[in-house]
Amino acid sequence: MPDVWIAGAGMTRFGKREENLPDLVAEAARAALAAARLEAPDLVVVAAMNPEEFIGEGNFASQIATHLGFAHVPALRVETATSSGAAAVYTAFAVVAAGLSRSVLVVGGEKMTHLPTPRVSEIIGRSIDRDERAYGATMPALAGLITRVLLAKTGVTLKEISQVSVKNHAHGALNPYAHFQEPVTLAAVMESRIVADPLRLYHCCPISDGAAALVLSADRTPVRIAGIGHGTDTLAVRYRDSLVSFRATQDAARAAYRMAGFGPERVEVAEVHDAFSPFELIALEDLGLVPAGKAGAATLRGETALEGRLPVNPSGGLKARGHPLAATGIAQIVELVWQLLGQAHGRQVAARVGLAHSIGGLATNNWVTLLERVS
Amino acid sequence: MPDVWIAGAGMTRFGKREENLPDLVAEAARAALAAARLEAPDLVVVAAMNPEEFIGEGNFASQIATHLGFAHVPALRVETATSSGAAAVYTAFAVVAAGLSRSVLVVGGEKMTHLPTPRVSEIIGRSIDRDERAYGATMPALAGLITRVLLAKTGVTLKEISQVSVKNHAHGALNPYAHFQEPVTLAAVMESRIVADPLRLYHCCPISDGAAALVLSADRTPVRIAGIGHGTDTLAVRYRDSLVSFRATQDAARAAYRMAGFGPERVEVAEVHDAFSPFELIALEDLGLVPAGKAGAATLRGETALEGRLPVNPSGGLKARGHPLAATGIAQIVELVWQLLGQAHGRQVAARVGLAHSIGGLATNNWVTLLERVS
Repeated sequence: MPDVWIAGAGMTRFGKREENLPDLVAEAARAALAAARLEAPDLVVVAAMNPEEFIGEGNFASQIATHLGFAHVPALRVETATSSGAAAVYTAFAVVAAGLSRSVLVVGGEKMTHLPTPRVSEIIGRSIDRDERAYGATMPALAGLITRVLLAKTGVTLKEISQVSVKNHAHGALNPYAHFQEPVTLAAVMESRIVADPLRLYHCCPISDGAAALVLSADRTPVRIAGIGHGTDTLAVRYRDSLVSFRATQDAARAAYRMAGFGPERVEVAEVHDAFSPFELIALEDLGLVPAGKAGAATLRGETALEGRLPVNPSGGLKARGHPLAATGIAQIVELVWQLLGQAHGRQVAARVGLAHSIGGLATNNWVTLLERVS
Repeated sequence: MPDVWIAGAGMTRFGKREENLPDLVAEAARAALAAARLEAPDLVVVAAMNPEEFIGEGNFASQIATHLGFAHVPALRVETATSSGAAAVYTAFAVVAAGLSRSVLVVGGEKMTHLPTPRVSEIIGRSIDRDERAYGATMPALAGLITRVLLAKTGVTLKEISQVSVKNHAHGALNPYAHFQEPVTLAAVMESRIVADPLRLYHCCPISDGAAALVLSADRTPVRIAGIGHGTDTLAVRYRDSLVSFRATQDAARAAYRMAGFGPERVEVAEVHDAFSPFELIALEDLGLVPAGKAGAATLRGETALEGRLPVNPSGGLKARGHPLAATGIAQIVELVWQLLGQAHGRQVAARVGLAHSIGGLATNNWVTLLERVS
């Protein structure tokens, strides 16, 4: 299989944006195309979780292609709930690796802040098993339940979970693309209002608008996609073997490391899916980046901070950079590209290998992507 | 690029079905897996145009994987409006051709008949450019407009258009999977009630429920995918260079023939997207299957009937087999597989090369797939 390279990366600032979704997507796409010095790609892969209900638009790949001025460039849409961006990267990767296209624009975005929060929660909540929904489960409710199990069955503490938020806000404060660009104190996190006991407001990512884009290429660039893995699990949380780890992440990581030919020991920077702060601790262990049972302590010790042994979410993560659903899986890789190329001004870490981890639904459809700087 | 083979094909009967969409999808998937003698695939690619609004479900790839008993098999969803099934076949093709999976289950379906027709039309209508929608355009309205141009600018007659419906109903009458399994007369077509002048009821495909599935494989079988092409055009119909041909079909056909290394002269059977009967005439010329300006006369002469020179829509097409949106692009290929393998009982034609043509939106996102029986 031929190597697949990243030729360009770009994104919009995440947050509450007044622009419509096609304009946000175009802003990100143009930035990535400019970075790749590419006029038009051979294919556009669009990621959007639910443009039908968020903005009332269908046939969204064609809409985006037309809006970008690429009406005659083939375009298709890929969706795996909140990990749709990562799924779109995988699809583009396959198309380039198969030799079907030389250059593919991958662009994802979501626009949600114009809707009332209960409506956004309802739409996102459709990612949950129907029977669990019928009993009132929402994403934060299930995340709260998982956090309760985590606290009860492992050594993880609420202080460790809260430190994830403190760290990611500190990183976000250095990132001009972040939804929240201000630090928070541990006390502020631990005293913020309850969302789904024991999860508080500052343990949860915000509702954000935004878009992110990549150009994947068959032509050599300094950064290659070393591995991509995909893992899935039962839609119903009640059928899982474990609630303190996510099998979908473990399976995705195993597949990505296998393709790359190396393991977690080579990863020097990671962007992980902290839609809820405890999920970052679960991910670090599922990904093999810290030993089992040690993620909380490592976080408290600062190992995963910008200046630590393994910087995690230097962008601010979903917590502080924000989470425009289908944009997120792409934005994680955008951040890694910038980090590997030394372009992460003000929050730069030293790394040649980066890992991106994206969760779809309540960990039903997860992806791990490994990037390597080779020149 | 290694060859990609079709190891199994299956579908449900199309029509007004009482089962829910996951059950329909499972019925089609199990039939395709049984035909392929495969217990579990490496990947599931799910096609659905809009499960969120048609049935109130999201995260649909994970939902289907779990429902099939494949909760731990990676699954993703692909969407290009009404051609989503063909787009899913392309995605699976790329994954197998890249060597990322050995066997991929592609399954698509839609459930719509439980909703009032105006609601279905509204949801499908989102595939149209926003400005044209604002002026009241619907799919049938735009198809009516295109038909008016066709009548005014080419030699096509309403009788020729109506003969497409007569032919496809005659074929559907032989297909136990078809929504409509009864013939109609030319007079009945030409006297049916007006939907969008000059289009009448029997010039339009029905609203159908159903699902279809394929297993794509890296292992040799008698039928290979010889070529796949993708073409796109402006979302807004008013910006098209021509209304009597579809550039997206022409581009898709060119790409598919190039990949296959042969042209339309080798095609012996075709399944084309006759959501509106005049579209079959447009497609035959865009695909190069009949000379420009000759499709209507060829249809009247019976050249495209089951016993003609080039049988077109032996399944009954969208008109008579029905059109459960994302199922259709897959069902066309299911029909071709059965035809090439000699399994199209009661409607069998003699063919070793088949062509499937699928339209997304108002010809904004079209696909052409070429199948070849090689042993």
